[in-house]
Amino acid sequence: MPKISQRGNSMPASPIRKLVPYAEAAKQKGIHVIHLNIGQPDIFTPEVAFDALHHLNLKVIEYSHSAGNETYRRKLASYYRSIGIDVDYNEILITTGGSEALTFAFLSCLNPGDEVIMPEPFYANYNGFATLAGIHIVPVTSAIDNAFALPPVADFEKLITSRTKGIVICNPNNPTGYLYSEEELNALRDLVLKHDLFFFSDEVYREFCYDGARHFSVMHLEGLKEHAVMIDSVSKRFSECGVRIGALVSKNRQLIETALKFGQARLSPPGLGQIVGEASLDTPDHYFSDVKEEYVQRRNFLVKELNQIPGVVCPEPKGAFYTMVKLPVDDSDQFCRWILNDFEFEGHTVMMAPGSGFYSSNDKGRNEVRIAYVLNRDDLAKAVTVLRKALEVYPGRQ
Amino acid sequence: MPKISQRGNSMPASPIRKLVPYAEAAKQKGIHVIHLNIGQPDIFTPEVAFDALHHLNLKVIEYSHSAGNETYRRKLASYYRSIGIDVDYNEILITTGGSEALTFAFLSCLNPGDEVIMPEPFYANYNGFATLAGIHIVPVTSAIDNAFALPPVADFEKLITSRTKGIVICNPNNPTGYLYSEEELNALRDLVLKHDLFFFSDEVYREFCYDGARHFSVMHLEGLKEHAVMIDSVSKRFSECGVRIGALVSKNRQLIETALKFGQARLSPPGLGQIVGEASLDTPDHYFSDVKEEYVQRRNFLVKELNQIPGVVCPEPKGAFYTMVKLPVDDSDQFCRWILNDFEFEGHTVMMAPGSGFYSSNDKGRNEVRIAYVLNRDDLAKAVTVLRKALEVYPGRQ
Repeated sequence: MPKISQRGNSMPASPIRKLVPYAEAAKQKGIHVIHLNIGQPDIFTPEVAFDALHHLNLKVIEYSHSAGNETYRRKLASYYRSIGIDVDYNEILITTGGSEALTFAFLSCLNPGDEVIMPEPFYANYNGFATLAGIHIVPVTSAIDNAFALPPVADFEKLITSRTKGIVICNPNNPTGYLYSEEELNALRDLVLKHDLFFFSDEVYREFCYDGARHFSVMHLEGLKEHAVMIDSVSKRFSECGVRIGALVSKNRQLIETALKFGQARLSPPGLGQIVGEASLDTPDHYFSDVKEEYVQRRNFLVKELNQIPGVVCPEPKGAFYTMVKLPVDDSDQFCRWILNDFEFEGHTVMMAPGSGFYSSNDKGRNEVRIAYVLNRDDLAKAVTVLRKALEVYPGRQ
Repeated sequence: MPKISQRGNSMPASPIRKLVPYAEAAKQKGIHVIHLNIGQPDIFTPEVAFDALHHLNLKVIEYSHSAGNETYRRKLASYYRSIGIDVDYNEILITTGGSEALTFAFLSCLNPGDEVIMPEPFYANYNGFATLAGIHIVPVTSAIDNAFALPPVADFEKLITSRTKGIVICNPNNPTGYLYSEEELNALRDLVLKHDLFFFSDEVYREFCYDGARHFSVMHLEGLKEHAVMIDSVSKRFSECGVRIGALVSKNRQLIETALKFGQARLSPPGLGQIVGEASLDTPDHYFSDVKEEYVQRRNFLVKELNQIPGVVCPEPKGAFYTMVKLPVDDSDQFCRWILNDFEFEGHTVMMAPGSGFYSSNDKGRNEVRIAYVLNRDDLAKAVTVLRKALEVYPGRQ
């Protein structure tokens, strides 16, 4: 029997994968599992997206241009210009989700064995893209006690080696909900220029900034024309996770040309998703204000309720729709399993993502979980009650 | 300015990329360019596919399962069983086109530096997937004088090293149109078993077999349960190139589990494409017989006409919709450029894919071009006339 590759064996599984059998077992016992573990919003996709599909008038679903339909790229460039990001359509490569955008960026900018530095906790799938590209993630730990603010730039700088090719941030952040300030971004800009690094910024949650805070894009920074690489996606903005449409944006033409070669090998990004993405750019403004208002209310409710549970610490996220929460438990991997397998309250339990999967440093995040507030407030209220009751009786409580 | 990676620089461009500016210049001069260079069929996508989109009744376009929707995988398994391929739905991973299926297969089965052996000429984008995965393609040359039949298995065996992890074929073949026989597949099976290799078979043109020939799948071979890996796609079967839906199929559960980890990192395959792919499995049989009849007529016309041009040799393809053609020219890269840039006949010229891009051995294919017969017969007739007239006056004629 031929062997699976070492690369395949070392490919990390999703942080919640080990929990799935427990969640399924709970459901089979008739327990309602409230999913706080996933970033799939319950927000409706805009009507204009479905209209485009209902009125589709094609005879053949053809390959698109490998960089994406020009009409879509031009319209997307207009949207970026409307938020102060000055890009031309040929500085945009449409990708199969933000996932492919980051993968193409890594493949184009890093050789196997090269390194990127990123604040942890970070989106767990970055580990997968790194394994695919054969590169290493070097983490700088951000602290829950500091609401996951950017660690001092000196902490980044001391990790720079000859193999370091870039800095990666996710802004607003998944999993912490932290929104990086203009000052923090400027500090990273100076570092990036000093060491001639790429600055990769995953901005798929751009529309989800709360309390009047303004989003600063890596593309807004001065002097980073050749260094700044923006990752984008329609998944969260329009609640279109399933269409798998993202974008790689950079004014570094050599980077876009190189990424396009990877794009040509896979022929084209999803065609129907591009039609939906293009149509969705006509989504009326009230859609976003309604969605934002909904998330703010969910966040306010969740953060307040969580912080009232003895021993629980939940910083207030300023963006996205996740929060990393400190729990008074010995080991959140064990706790997340236990609550599915050994606990229910009035027929409900909750599924959360254990914190350790979002750190690459060993033994970090062991008393943290990531909670996504993508559910309606009734479900969130039930979930908080379940969590409170569970922490009262969990044998590994600390 | 930070540097692009060596990997990015070595990523091969598409074989026709250098020709694109010449084709665009010809069009700007008012010349009609007949595209014989691309595999985008003009065949209509089945009505059932568009019906599914026109009647789509969703509120949120959600992520699907990372392995693809279970309903689609179950229905696809039924289709495979109907053609004698005994697979269960959990032996199928839905991918973003056949491209992603082969990429996941390479990543899961080979480490960087490992090798696969494949007959050349081969589909040029295999080079891109190999570069992405950091693996090497070791070619065995098949000969146009032998209609591109499988080279002797001894030619494969003498190339096997400790780094060889698999054999790759495309059946029916792009670019040659060759259909491998049961005997040829059995010979490869014996080799694969003897050396404990994976046997990757790209079968996206399965439905396009002519003259009553039967398609033999790698999944039909005895004793290859752990070795056989089938690559599939809806692109050609249903003329749905743009939806980007493929499949990785294997009874090697460890391989499917490993590939799924790469699938989980990119979250899910395109959702709308899966809906289209699932609906398309209800395409009525007459669609395929009509399409096949159309391709046979195109092929018969094209092959007969091409072989009547002095110095031109075109074997009769038994499947797919491509043919590799030998031309009486010094260098087909130059000829393909010249015919776009310096020639037209009655306002028409043709774009063809130079043969060299389909070989990894140096200096092979220099007098060959790949022609796709995905156009109606009027256009094919015009194209043959242009080619005949061009060869009469081409300065590099041999």
